[in-house]
Amino acid sequence: MGHDTYMKLALTLAEAARGQTSPNPLVGCVIVQGGEIVGMGAHLRAGEAHAEVQALRMAGERARGATAYVTLEPCSHHGRTPPCANALIASGVASVVIASSDPNPLVAGQGVARLREAGISVTCGVCEEEAKRLNEVFFTYITKKRPFVTIKTAMTLDGKVATQTGSSRWITGEAARLDVHQMRHEHDAILVGVGTVIADDPQLTTRLPEEKGRNPVRIVLDTALRIPDTARMLTDGEAPVWVFTTDRASQEKRTVLEAMGVRVFSTGMTQRVHIETMLGVLGEEGITSLLVEGGSEVNASFLTASAVDKLVTYVAPKLVAGHLAPTPFGGIGVEQMADAIDLADLKVETVGVDLKISGYPVWKERPCLQD
Amino acid sequence: MGHDTYMKLALTLAEAARGQTSPNPLVGCVIVQGGEIVGMGAHLRAGEAHAEVQALRMAGERARGATAYVTLEPCSHHGRTPPCANALIASGVASVVIASSDPNPLVAGQGVARLREAGISVTCGVCEEEAKRLNEVFFTYITKKRPFVTIKTAMTLDGKVATQTGSSRWITGEAARLDVHQMRHEHDAILVGVGTVIADDPQLTTRLPEEKGRNPVRIVLDTALRIPDTARMLTDGEAPVWVFTTDRASQEKRTVLEAMGVRVFSTGMTQRVHIETMLGVLGEEGITSLLVEGGSEVNASFLTASAVDKLVTYVAPKLVAGHLAPTPFGGIGVEQMADAIDLADLKVETVGVDLKISGYPVWKERPCLQD
Repeated sequence: MGHDTYMKLALTLAEAARGQTSPNPLVGCVIVQGGEIVGMGAHLRAGEAHAEVQALRMAGERARGATAYVTLEPCSHHGRTPPCANALIASGVASVVIASSDPNPLVAGQGVARLREAGISVTCGVCEEEAKRLNEVFFTYITKKRPFVTIKTAMTLDGKVATQTGSSRWITGEAARLDVHQMRHEHDAILVGVGTVIADDPQLTTRLPEEKGRNPVRIVLDTALRIPDTARMLTDGEAPVWVFTTDRASQEKRTVLEAMGVRVFSTGMTQRVHIETMLGVLGEEGITSLLVEGGSEVNASFLTASAVDKLVTYVAPKLVAGHLAPTPFGGIGVEQMADAIDLADLKVETVGVDLKISGYPVWKERPCLQD
Repeated sequence: MGHDTYMKLALTLAEAARGQTSPNPLVGCVIVQGGEIVGMGAHLRAGEAHAEVQALRMAGERARGATAYVTLEPCSHHGRTPPCANALIASGVASVVIASSDPNPLVAGQGVARLREAGISVTCGVCEEEAKRLNEVFFTYITKKRPFVTIKTAMTLDGKVATQTGSSRWITGEAARLDVHQMRHEHDAILVGVGTVIADDPQLTTRLPEEKGRNPVRIVLDTALRIPDTARMLTDGEAPVWVFTTDRASQEKRTVLEAMGVRVFSTGMTQRVHIETMLGVLGEEGITSLLVEGGSEVNASFLTASAVDKLVTYVAPKLVAGHLAPTPFGGIGVEQMADAIDLADLKVETVGVDLKISGYPVWKERPCLQD
């Protein structure tokens, strides 16, 4: 078995904790001694032992002279736990294989440097792409200081998110709807526009069959504070509600909402809620991942702000037609087809009767979308 | 090797002649003697030998006591060639295995009856579903007396067939566009609305890299005979042009077009060209398959008429946004999401950078689309 095989195992260990480690990254570690796996570990939860420490514990004395496979550069700084680079050095491993370096400026190559200073042989870049995708959320959060934004839409095969009359239940089948609850479980926050709150009164909680799952913080874009104070999400106590508004909203309504325990943020005297400002606030508040389940216009406003990191589109094998039926992205859009926003790394899966298509928008320098 | 294996080979032989046999069905035949293949054949072109005859010729004396696998019930009537049932009987085969019976009222079980009367053992229904899909065009044509209608659309991953300004070149990549030329090659006729002729002045010919391919008859829906007499398709002489109009169009323009060699058909004093009437005329004219490359409104009119047998949607991994950007199906559409038209047998392929999603609309008794 080569480097790749062990690293893929480490990636699998890391992936298993998805949705549990925020604001920390997913990390997996495998320790191999004489062709035998002697230790395996993963970081399971912020504040608990890091992957390397878990794996070294399992390996015990057999770590001496072994090779450690780690999906992310071991940390060299004291956070809530002691630095993993130190633990690896103390264990006596002979070599360390790393998938991707840590974009965190507190680590950034210092982990590798410390290992090498201690005489350990270090190899970097094994399964690097997979490791970066694994921690796409964490890497974006660390480097851009804002959450990783995923827009989730569901449409018919003729591109509609509702019929002309606004009817939208249900576009997709049960399996796809369950898949969305898994996505909610894995995100720190979920966002809708106030129009959705008024029309559907959603709870936006995670409802998985076996266990409830983790509820994301519920975020509402609400330029003029039109959210009804009877909205289920304001009264169910299931998860925090944060409302982003502008200085054009009524101060009185703001006071009412705050008295109900809602956190209200304003992006100033802007026409609408300013997406970039809002994302900056969310980053400061420790929100690393944001799932946008907006309607056509909310989705378009993220696109206009070039603030979409990933798109997940469920496509239902059905047609509704209608030239006024809404589509996943409204707004004005690009003028020329040649200026369309390309999606990279397209992935297609079958989820029940529906398709799940995901990809990563490629943002060019020149903005080409009109608001 | 069992029945299925030989029948799948016969289906492959039949499939190889796709686009060549109209108005006849695709048929393949394999003859097996003592576990050895002794004959293979396919129907290649109307007027030429049928699959069974080709395979029997190859088998010669070794057909005696053999088993013949045929994808379609052998004919029992004299058409342009003598009946195949007779040829099978004369060859001395001991058994015949058939995939699907022939919906043609001139055959309809009589082929099987004649074989059995001659003492041949007959098995039916092996790989029946595949055989029916193989000849979906022919079966629809024979039973409904109208062409099999395939709507082909190309959209972005946010459901747009053009930007808000009408820009649509190119949505898909080169591989998908080539794939469309293969589809044109396989269809008897291609249809667009006059709006497309005015906007894009298309030729609608088949342009395949190796050989030109077969050009379909070019059909234009044109309620008021607005087609410019300078349109390329009217002057290039590449393939016939048939225009469907209404009695509301100018008789003068009709005369001009007819003098140019265009066949002009009217569906009467209808608001727009009446789709069902037009399809009936096409059936009478021997058009077995129709590829609709219409815009949003033309596509919707076929949907409203429940006259779509198959949908092929190319999905490009890009976004253009825009709430006024057109989608594959315009019109009014269904009111309730629960009344959406389901698509069966969904198939997803990757064609270059794009996805090709195809399916078969399931038409219920109750019409639910508004015109």
